[in-house]
Amino acid sequence: MARRNKLILGAFLQTPGQHTAGWRYPRANAEASLDIDAQIAFARTAERGLFHAIFIADTLPFPVNLNDETLSYSARVVDFEPITLLSALAVATNRIGLVGTVTTTYYEPYTVARQLASLDYLSKGRAGWNVVTSSNSAEAFNYGKREHPLHSLRYVRAREFVDIVKGLWDSWDDDAFLFDKASGKFFIPEKMHVLNHQSPQFNIRGPLGVARPPQGHPVIVQAGSSDAGRTAAASFADVIFTAQSDLAGAIAFYDDVRARTSAAGRDPDHIAILPGVTPVVAATRSEAEDKYAQLQDLIHPVAGVAMLSGAAGADLSKYSIDGPLPEVPPTEGDKTRQELLVAHARETGKSIRDLYRWLASGYNTVVGTPTDIADHFEHWFNSGAADGFNVRFSYLPGDLDDFVDLVVPELQRRGLYHDAYEGVTLRDNLQIPRPHSRYRRD
Amino acid sequence: MARRNKLILGAFLQTPGQHTAGWRYPRANAEASLDIDAQIAFARTAERGLFHAIFIADTLPFPVNLNDETLSYSARVVDFEPITLLSALAVATNRIGLVGTVTTTYYEPYTVARQLASLDYLSKGRAGWNVVTSSNSAEAFNYGKREHPLHSLRYVRAREFVDIVKGLWDSWDDDAFLFDKASGKFFIPEKMHVLNHQSPQFNIRGPLGVARPPQGHPVIVQAGSSDAGRTAAASFADVIFTAQSDLAGAIAFYDDVRARTSAAGRDPDHIAILPGVTPVVAATRSEAEDKYAQLQDLIHPVAGVAMLSGAAGADLSKYSIDGPLPEVPPTEGDKTRQELLVAHARETGKSIRDLYRWLASGYNTVVGTPTDIADHFEHWFNSGAADGFNVRFSYLPGDLDDFVDLVVPELQRRGLYHDAYEGVTLRDNLQIPRPHSRYRRD
Repeated sequence: MARRNKLILGAFLQTPGQHTAGWRYPRANAEASLDIDAQIAFARTAERGLFHAIFIADTLPFPVNLNDETLSYSARVVDFEPITLLSALAVATNRIGLVGTVTTTYYEPYTVARQLASLDYLSKGRAGWNVVTSSNSAEAFNYGKREHPLHSLRYVRAREFVDIVKGLWDSWDDDAFLFDKASGKFFIPEKMHVLNHQSPQFNIRGPLGVARPPQGHPVIVQAGSSDAGRTAAASFADVIFTAQSDLAGAIAFYDDVRARTSAAGRDPDHIAILPGVTPVVAATRSEAEDKYAQLQDLIHPVAGVAMLSGAAGADLSKYSIDGPLPEVPPTEGDKTRQELLVAHARETGKSIRDLYRWLASGYNTVVGTPTDIADHFEHWFNSGAADGFNVRFSYLPGDLDDFVDLVVPELQRRGLYHDAYEGVTLRDNLQIPRPHSRYRRD
Repeated sequence: MARRNKLILGAFLQTPGQHTAGWRYPRANAEASLDIDAQIAFARTAERGLFHAIFIADTLPFPVNLNDETLSYSARVVDFEPITLLSALAVATNRIGLVGTVTTTYYEPYTVARQLASLDYLSKGRAGWNVVTSSNSAEAFNYGKREHPLHSLRYVRAREFVDIVKGLWDSWDDDAFLFDKASGKFFIPEKMHVLNHQSPQFNIRGPLGVARPPQGHPVIVQAGSSDAGRTAAASFADVIFTAQSDLAGAIAFYDDVRARTSAAGRDPDHIAILPGVTPVVAATRSEAEDKYAQLQDLIHPVAGVAMLSGAAGADLSKYSIDGPLPEVPPTEGDKTRQELLVAHARETGKSIRDLYRWLASGYNTVVGTPTDIADHFEHWFNSGAADGFNVRFSYLPGDLDDFVDLVVPELQRRGLYHDAYEGVTLRDNLQIPRPHSRYRRD
């Protein structure tokens, strides 16, 4: 049973494309990653498609062992930094939510609180924060660390970090400012709050140099599906992304996270669970299958093995490309992705080549007509597996254009999707309440 | 002798105004600090006035000893975070430079390099970085530190930090990217460079996840006028701001910084030295004087004493407002500002009240007609005291509007100021060359 009567859709904009070989597809703009005009066009197309938000990922594209030759087949080595990009998109769009990924492992809470509060003002209440703990251990090398902190420790830090950021966002009551030219009084002293957070990990005084954000708190997004990730999501997230490859697993995840949310003392109807989905759509089924086959055939073996190595957490270049996935040690990076991969390899017995082809296309790829895609969405939604989807595009802009032009009208025709943005802020559009300040006096 | 044939002008946009009481002035927009529409209007007015760049300051507005009641008379407690604001302004303007202040004391070089490179792409080559070391020791309290690092240590860190950032900006040669769909090769491996910076302070591997910025390196600005500040500026800055209250001092500073720049092995014609100036302009001299008197009379004594305490580095609230400035210990904060204040107090014998009135109006305030202001600019420029000015506005938007409408045409009539932006990038417009990569092979 769906808890909402309409789907929530996020547009996961990975430039130049989600698919490893997406940039090589004829209709792809291979040079879009640092082209602001292209990025604005993508965001406006997503807004035309009434997506609730765009999501900008942020994974350091460089592996622990840099191999320039291998890396040079990857199109994901340079792009805009998410917060700066979203700040620009804030004034180039009007209604769509703007969710950026920021790591709690290598950033400071005061800076993160400030930049995201600032983004919420720039966008008039459309900011969101995808909280990550950095799965790529090579990130440590850019922050003066020789060792990446362990997965479990990263989550301990993440939970405290988010709590501090939320506290800093509450530094000023919503009605703290007087702007009173006559008396010279700019704000009401009792409505300023000093956090004074002290712990072994953090000493943060406050107050924040930004007023309480339009949304109270920007929307918090969490994507880790490991046990620690789920617990963290249940404790602080408004929106949860998840990689689910089949309906049964998605339903189990959905129920589990809702139960954990209740157990954390929160209303599970105030969260939105969005599995990722990668539609490959065309007017006919055979055209869609041709498109998909063409994408898969464009994967350069060097790029494919490198990508699979990243997901496996082990260098696979020395193994036979047509042989099976070897045993790999548990990663301290993205555990969810590794577990999914190992389970799939075990289940199917696929070769390295077939595994990277499978991985390249995304976890939940649906190839077909607009009707096929809408059927899939409707089935998952009505089965209680999803409040909506985080939609991934194999290449940009073509795949996004096709979704907006072909799939959105079909979803609307079925009454599954809104016909206009109803709210002003992202929270309004997600139907997730604006949080009270922790300093509220009842 | 002026080294350039036209003035360079920066618009120092401190919202709601540079003057402590500016926000109380009838024509001031007291609520502009977190209003993006107002900020866009300011930036577009500055662009209409052909300012080479806008400069966004960033000083933590909260003192070491928080006194909510005193603070509540200050209008500088909340505003946009500079990099997010400038990212938004990048797509709302076309030609004006965008210089943001970012501290090297509490940020990480990789993040700073990334965000500024991203801003340079968003603005198509109009980004600048005002390098500061954080003069307000209370900033430490928001970054987990109990003690603010000493002034001299902050500069040691700043110089290494800037060197790392520049190195990261050179991670990719200008022609590193192929985008070659046919071969699947995205970039040329030999054109990627790994910094591998290792020192007791920093361990930064690289490469940066952003291609080499359009300007090669965004423009580097430095504003410290202490001995350490001047040496730092001579070693790495493209643009130097300075607070100078009289012509002789400004000429001495100008000559000194140019000499230090030569001594550092750089061409002093490739830097621009911009003293701050605060014009209070009106159609007639008496109107201008009335405007200035009205601003000064609007300073609330509590706000005035608090501001002076900040500059003096000591709490002055317990001293008689009509008595002299007491002896103050040397600050570890903004040394330049304290030294200027103490020298002025000694020279003039002013009371605390008169000192805050003097301080409130800025170091180099010129009250008069457009002709008076242009005379001042021309005199300093032709005397070899300045390559231009960083113009401060007592309140926004009125004072900026007046400058653009009244003073700019007078400067243009005299042939002192450009009639259009001639270049595309900020470096072009400043006539400061695009730097070569440190990895260039001759």
